[in-house]
Amino acid sequence: MDTVETPAAIVDLARVRRNLEATVAYTRAHGLGWRPHVKTHKSPDLARMQMDAGASGLTVATPREAEVMAPVTPDLLLAHPPVPPKTERLMRLPPGVRLTVALDDEALLAPLARAAAEAGRTVGVLVELDVGMGRVGLAGPPEVVALARRISAAGPDLEWRGLLFYPGHIRVTAGEQAPLLAGVASRLDAVLEALQRAGLAPAVVSGGSTPTLFQSHLIPGLTEIRPGTSIFHDRDSVALGAATLDDVAYTVLATVVSTAVPGHAVVDAGSKALAREEFRAVPGQGGFGILLDRPEVRVISVSEEHGVLDLAGTSWRPRVGDRVRIVPNHVCVSVNLQDRLLTFDPGDGATGKSLGELPLSGRGRLAVQGPEVC
Amino acid sequence: MDTVETPAAIVDLARVRRNLEATVAYTRAHGLGWRPHVKTHKSPDLARMQMDAGASGLTVATPREAEVMAPVTPDLLLAHPPVPPKTERLMRLPPGVRLTVALDDEALLAPLARAAAEAGRTVGVLVELDVGMGRVGLAGPPEVVALARRISAAGPDLEWRGLLFYPGHIRVTAGEQAPLLAGVASRLDAVLEALQRAGLAPAVVSGGSTPTLFQSHLIPGLTEIRPGTSIFHDRDSVALGAATLDDVAYTVLATVVSTAVPGHAVVDAGSKALAREEFRAVPGQGGFGILLDRPEVRVISVSEEHGVLDLAGTSWRPRVGDRVRIVPNHVCVSVNLQDRLLTFDPGDGATGKSLGELPLSGRGRLAVQGPEVC
Repeated sequence: MDTVETPAAIVDLARVRRNLEATVAYTRAHGLGWRPHVKTHKSPDLARMQMDAGASGLTVATPREAEVMAPVTPDLLLAHPPVPPKTERLMRLPPGVRLTVALDDEALLAPLARAAAEAGRTVGVLVELDVGMGRVGLAGPPEVVALARRISAAGPDLEWRGLLFYPGHIRVTAGEQAPLLAGVASRLDAVLEALQRAGLAPAVVSGGSTPTLFQSHLIPGLTEIRPGTSIFHDRDSVALGAATLDDVAYTVLATVVSTAVPGHAVVDAGSKALAREEFRAVPGQGGFGILLDRPEVRVISVSEEHGVLDLAGTSWRPRVGDRVRIVPNHVCVSVNLQDRLLTFDPGDGATGKSLGELPLSGRGRLAVQGPEVC
Repeated sequence: MDTVETPAAIVDLARVRRNLEATVAYTRAHGLGWRPHVKTHKSPDLARMQMDAGASGLTVATPREAEVMAPVTPDLLLAHPPVPPKTERLMRLPPGVRLTVALDDEALLAPLARAAAEAGRTVGVLVELDVGMGRVGLAGPPEVVALARRISAAGPDLEWRGLLFYPGHIRVTAGEQAPLLAGVASRLDAVLEALQRAGLAPAVVSGGSTPTLFQSHLIPGLTEIRPGTSIFHDRDSVALGAATLDDVAYTVLATVVSTAVPGHAVVDAGSKALAREEFRAVPGQGGFGILLDRPEVRVISVSEEHGVLDLAGTSWRPRVGDRVRIVPNHVCVSVNLQDRLLTFDPGDGATGKSLGELPLSGRGRLAVQGPEVC
């Protein structure tokens, strides 16, 4: 790690294993399925670790993620509304893939049914429910029942499987989540009751996020959760109490390139390595990341290839050439900016000192052509 | 453009040509060199258009950009402090490349001189001056003269070439720039005078940005400018008056995937296609982009693969499946998220209807291996 070119994405595999084990233990204790979202890591190797640890399938956001993850598990959920020509592309997944999609608009059903029929496959459909985030999803029982009826009546190529929601509006610590989760539970309960009455009881109720991960049992009726960030964690999930800094498994290694401006040190990781994602967890504490080993030092501004460290709260006086490991605000978008992940494994005597390399094959949008993935 | 999978990056080549011509006309009228920054487009094809239009060389920010642009021009400026092992990597550029680097710390000179000597090359060095942005760069005459002396005395492998600065703090319209540019000119003038007295008159004084592009003649002593964004423009440069919406040559094509939440339409371009870059030009007008054909419609929030359009200021009521073209706040970071650029050329009767494709070979950080670039 002292000689690799920076900026570089570094993954601590011992922490990854610990993070996966925590989720497995929780979901087993509460009888929940675990379908991790691969958007965070984009890596078939890490997805395989998740499946080996006990995941029931994987969640994807794009056709490319689906193509890259199909060899890892046949059970894929696309948690994004499938619009043509993505619909047709998804039908070219290997025939053994059991694909489920989520949507909130009946306009998507006809092209989906047509594409499924042409490909000779059955596609599972979840209806997306808005539980308070106000991004996508239907508002309540009448709309959900109406769309579920249409899916059921759409013919043999589509299969009504249930509900999907994302409680992305819940951005407080676990101790403060109870009233917000009660709101989610109450919205969900009304929908479940209406579906039951309509003879459309859902087989799947898919929810969950990283901030609410360990409170998912407070939502009756939930069958599975789809956390993404929890494999790595980040500044945001630490600030929301979903993890501690000791759980953060992903950092961006960077080198100090200038100390000319007093009070600052400038590193070679900027918005093209960390992403310019505002820090939303604690109002008033801005910046774009903190140092893993000196969390009092923030990246207070970023240009494309420069990150500015604020030295006001530290006696540390770095020199040009010094290296730091930065915890970004939002790990998913930082991973998406990398060419590859460099791994180390403190628990493995043989490989603890050398860096491994994982391709990020799920990045980008081009169709996967053959076995070689650029 | 009606059938390509979204999100997709679309480039209007007629507008690109017009933008390049405007810069060429201005720099010729004022006797300034033009060394465009390729960080914006990362495309050797577009760099070749810039060289053909009259650029004197190219500016790069990373070793990979340098490697990818070396076949386009032998005259490359790395506008980023070279730290090992990037220093060694740069020395492996083709021998015909005339490389210049910019730095502000003498600690970088010894490794640079050693690497240059081992590679048998001469590397030009510019001293970076802070003209008010407070990011990198030396503060004033004594520091600049001291570092210039060290470069001159560093032996035959390094060559003192002059000064580099970036007026990134000037983010107002052209009409409001005069007092700020006077501040830059005064800082620069003091440094130039001190260097003259020390017998170290610089051959190169490299400055400029897109917002200040057409006011560069207000800085006496400037020899070249390095605008990046001006090849495409974006919401930010339009708001700063450096261009009009008719000049914007880059958009992200996206498809409406949900209209379930009242007052909104959700598209499939989010922070992994547009980037989550705050809009800094006009306080109070937030969001992450506007529609090219309906600029009153803003992208008011982004998740990774969702962008939320605010329909409050429009009578337009899009349906799921409709397509829109989004002007991002900051084009450079949006381009960096794409696999490729799709081009169309309204001026070309033969190709105006079909989309061309440009690889973004300068993206990422891996070394270029042979002629094939992934």
